[in-house]
Amino acid sequence: MIPNGTKHNELRQLVRSQLELLLDSGNLKGAKSLLIPVQPVDIAEAIEGLPESNQLIAFRLLSKAEAIEVYEYLNTDVQQALIQEFKRQEVLDVVDKMSPDDRARMFDELPAKVVRRLLSQLSPKERQATAILLGYGEDTAGRIMTPEYISLKENLTVSQTLERIRNLANASEIVYYLYVTNNSRQLKGIVSLRDLVLAAMDTTLTEIMTRDVVFVHTDTDQEEVARTIQRYDILALPVVDSEERLVGVVTVDDVIDVIEQEATEDIYALGGVQSDGDNYFQTNLLTVARRRVVWLFILLLTNTVTGTIINSQEDLLKQVVSLVAFIPLLTGTGGNVGAQSSTVVIRGLNTEEIKNMGAGKVVFREAAAGILLGLILGTMATIWAYFLLKGNLAVALSVGISLVAIALLASVAGSALPFLFRSLGLDPALMSAPFITTAVDVLGVLIYFYIARTILGL
Amino acid sequence: MIPNGTKHNELRQLVRSQLELLLDSGNLKGAKSLLIPVQPVDIAEAIEGLPESNQLIAFRLLSKAEAIEVYEYLNTDVQQALIQEFKRQEVLDVVDKMSPDDRARMFDELPAKVVRRLLSQLSPKERQATAILLGYGEDTAGRIMTPEYISLKENLTVSQTLERIRNLANASEIVYYLYVTNNSRQLKGIVSLRDLVLAAMDTTLTEIMTRDVVFVHTDTDQEEVARTIQRYDILALPVVDSEERLVGVVTVDDVIDVIEQEATEDIYALGGVQSDGDNYFQTNLLTVARRRVVWLFILLLTNTVTGTIINSQEDLLKQVVSLVAFIPLLTGTGGNVGAQSSTVVIRGLNTEEIKNMGAGKVVFREAAAGILLGLILGTMATIWAYFLLKGNLAVALSVGISLVAIALLASVAGSALPFLFRSLGLDPALMSAPFITTAVDVLGVLIYFYIARTILGL
Repeated sequence: MIPNGTKHNELRQLVRSQLELLLDSGNLKGAKSLLIPVQPVDIAEAIEGLPESNQLIAFRLLSKAEAIEVYEYLNTDVQQALIQEFKRQEVLDVVDKMSPDDRARMFDELPAKVVRRLLSQLSPKERQATAILLGYGEDTAGRIMTPEYISLKENLTVSQTLERIRNLANASEIVYYLYVTNNSRQLKGIVSLRDLVLAAMDTTLTEIMTRDVVFVHTDTDQEEVARTIQRYDILALPVVDSEERLVGVVTVDDVIDVIEQEATEDIYALGGVQSDGDNYFQTNLLTVARRRVVWLFILLLTNTVTGTIINSQEDLLKQVVSLVAFIPLLTGTGGNVGAQSSTVVIRGLNTEEIKNMGAGKVVFREAAAGILLGLILGTMATIWAYFLLKGNLAVALSVGISLVAIALLASVAGSALPFLFRSLGLDPALMSAPFITTAVDVLGVLIYFYIARTILGL
Repeated sequence: MIPNGTKHNELRQLVRSQLELLLDSGNLKGAKSLLIPVQPVDIAEAIEGLPESNQLIAFRLLSKAEAIEVYEYLNTDVQQALIQEFKRQEVLDVVDKMSPDDRARMFDELPAKVVRRLLSQLSPKERQATAILLGYGEDTAGRIMTPEYISLKENLTVSQTLERIRNLANASEIVYYLYVTNNSRQLKGIVSLRDLVLAAMDTTLTEIMTRDVVFVHTDTDQEEVARTIQRYDILALPVVDSEERLVGVVTVDDVIDVIEQEATEDIYALGGVQSDGDNYFQTNLLTVARRRVVWLFILLLTNTVTGTIINSQEDLLKQVVSLVAFIPLLTGTGGNVGAQSSTVVIRGLNTEEIKNMGAGKVVFREAAAGILLGLILGTMATIWAYFLLKGNLAVALSVGISLVAIALLASVAGSALPFLFRSLGLDPALMSAPFITTAVDVLGVLIYFYIARTILGL
């Protein structure tokens, strides 16, 4: 039994280091028995940690059944490295037997030439299944579904169904639900294994099936697929084509990965980093720089506006040079207040937590929070400025009043712009913290100079 | 059949508006039939949208079985409002029959007085189950598990097992797996319903059960529970006590919520907002302000350091006032570069994507990206400053060189500080974008003034 938590992590470490030692000393038999009690995902991790020259050797120690599972768990780059070395028989043993959805995901990443060669080596049935999946748009239900599921006619009895299931060639097609379809392959209902196990043997499927079926279409976005599974607490979601014929099933384990991937995309957008779904830590430095420089360049342009505004106030600043000391404080605090508002609103929009609240109500609420925070921080800033400038009340008051105005502005901008972006059909996460921060800079210095000129009478 | 996507959303809207109309006109019969084909989670949403006076009326239209499910989906505040009005019989019909994990979660939020009253009205068995769950620490496996599962002895045959399951009083205890335990209630293996359905009737459970069982302890953190379920692609994870006796099961649907909640916490931390797990949009304004002001206050303090540094350079700034115009550009760009690095590293640490990469390698990589980005942006900034200042090359060069240095500093700080925080046992997300941004400000102006003085010879 594999222990949990820390003990489990230690065991994983141990398997990794032992495997390398055994392979290096050529003890293949030892390596093979080491891997027998280990879970496929952990074997995959151990193989990933090996030097490339040993990866194929380790992989070939696995039984056929295990090889498929382990292969599905491997990183894309290790999958690619192995596949280049596979013999025709290994392609049939492993790639042909992978889940069609995992295979389609892997083919997406492979060079076209390799995909063509592999497709030609697959069995006709699997070749067709893969080609169909690859035909659906990226990030849609069609792309992440598996076309393997069990569909049954509604007049079958429970005992006939059990008989049918037991005679299936490929038991992996049974997930938690069985799907009842009519002659045009349209979905009529769902029977869970639990319903089946609990029902009397002579009941028909019509009597026990659930008719209120939640389903999605092949072109439904994967994020909506994830939300639907999450909302209805179901383990698998049927996918139908434009004529409402059942064509596949999305399972809950794929959905967990989608939710995590979407969260990462949101987090990246909030941090001003472009993301395109693949693992950041596997991409090279130039790609990393390219994904960041666009955002930084836009922000640099906005900053030059701030600079131009400050530069145009040379006369004021020459007269009261102490005004300069408070620019970073004002723009910085404004940026932070705006970042808080936009973070909360963007996350709320993306998790649909604020779907029942209108934009007006949210912005009003954030504006109120902005004023409240501005008053607290403005008071502190005024006191600090007064002491720093040894009693220059006029400048100290300019700082405090500006801070209240800037906090209000920042919270309104931070909460309203994500809504605006969404209503334009754009991703609200584009109105991210770095953007709000920089935009508030421009307006912040304008407000500050205006208030200072008014109070100082210059 | 409930249609998907947009059509589905329209239907949900329709149910909500119709329900309100029917209740307002006193047409309870109409309201009741309106709700019959609607999914429980959608009914819950419709009830949440009603004025408070109608919520209990709508709730009482539901059948007993449906009422429990709908109640579990309701927001905590609506649950609370309803529970205050419940008659003793309703407590027995609804609260007593809720899943123990959902009930424990709700009790967490209720005033202690209400919890005591409710506990006394529950049946003894449920009272005990709830008390046990409430005894486990927050955010642990013990708190989110359900104590309802089926455990069987290993010498049972498949047909005996099926017989046993069909005679169960409470069928809701059957999830996808059955658990095989020994006489001391220790977990020996797992049988999925699929294994059971596929096996011959006279096989014993020992022959078909999986012995390599992944499990967690009652005190395992819920985030690790989520990662384990995600890693092993399983639908339910057994939870054992300190003597390795099976005490409960965490199911995948609870885990999806945990993953989403943890992502929200990360996102909030990155945006400088304190989160404590409950829905932000249901909390009042003072709580909102309180959660943000601490962070803002810390950042304000850091900003006063920047201000003090600038103030101490009055002599320099009086001589070359045009230096001031570039402060926001330098600190802003530095902050953005640092935010990018910290975002990527923090997310990588939390999703365990960079577990195989050492801190040194990550920081080195980020430093290289920082220099590259600094060179690109620094060149642009130098050219712009040269034109803005009508040919003042010395200041323009100071700006460009400072930008390279600041970008390097920011990327190193942004990537190294999360690692440092983690090694101190703190949440790396505390080293968030707002903090990095503000910290880079302080060092940024110091670097800028030093470089400017050197180049200008002042």
